[in-house]
Amino acid sequence: MPPDPLYLEDLHVGQTFVTDSLTVTTDQIKAFAREFDPQPFHLDEEAARDSLFGGLAASGWHTAALTMRLLVGALPLAGGVVGAGGETTWPRPTRPGDTLTVHVEVLEVTPSRSRPDRGMIRTRSETRNQHGEAVQVSTVRIVAWRRPFTG
Amino acid sequence: MPPDPLYLEDLHVGQTFVTDSLTVTTDQIKAFAREFDPQPFHLDEEAARDSLFGGLAASGWHTAALTMRLLVGALPLAGGVVGAGGETTWPRPTRPGDTLTVHVEVLEVTPSRSRPDRGMIRTRSETRNQHGEAVQVSTVRIVAWRRPFTG
Repeated sequence: MPPDPLYLEDLHVGQTFVTDSLTVTTDQIKAFAREFDPQPFHLDEEAARDSLFGGLAASGWHTAALTMRLLVGALPLAGGVVGAGGETTWPRPTRPGDTLTVHVEVLEVTPSRSRPDRGMIRTRSETRNQHGEAVQVSTVRIVAWRRPFTG
Repeated sequence: MPPDPLYLEDLHVGQTFVTDSLTVTTDQIKAFAREFDPQPFHLDEEAARDSLFGGLAASGWHTAALTMRLLVGALPLAGGVVGAGGETTWPRPTRPGDTLTVHVEVLEVTPSRSRPDRGMIRTRSETRNQHGEAVQVSTVRIVAWRRPFTG
């Protein structure tokens, strides 16, 4: 059974979530790069060796997309996970064969002043590889709905 | 012929770039969502109608990936376009059939204090649809290399 949906009232500062994990293959890294970030260090092992990355590296936007994939599975927000924007850094690249897991912490829970049916949460997500090293850190604002009044 | 590569010395505050354009199809929106952001409002027209988006909308991370695709084609930085991180907001969603173009402005050019071979630029990128409306605004720090000394 899917977990109960979470409303604004169910969320609190300091609350944490840990997602499932997924493993990224060389083929996936290259396929994403061909479509969205066709640069040699994301496409070709040899060219990557002589680049800033020192070896094949996933596009940061691939890491971001995989992070979203993991978050969608682990954050059962009522109405879905809809980000309004945020800050992202990539302390190190995702490498072929890396297994990623996202650790999420709720930083703020803010009811909307103008719209009584919703609010915003701000979360910090750290996407870690199998060595526990961060490949992405993001703080994102996400819409959260208030529990409907049922009388 | 590809354009000459740009080094840190070639970049200045206020410099602007405009990318090519690309058009996003319904199938691409759904394919990206299936892989990275499998939520009803990115996958199914009918479910999307009743959501916050009021109709099928691309994942924000899809918009981000398409923005990168356009940037890679238009910013001929020596050594490639390698982002260190940044801030992203999505003022409105990308819709099926939207044609996107990215307008880039250089905000800062900062030589590294510790590494004489490189620096950072900070850019503001606005990804606009065919109506000139912003679907993504991001300020990103990007590595820029100094021109090698050739004697």
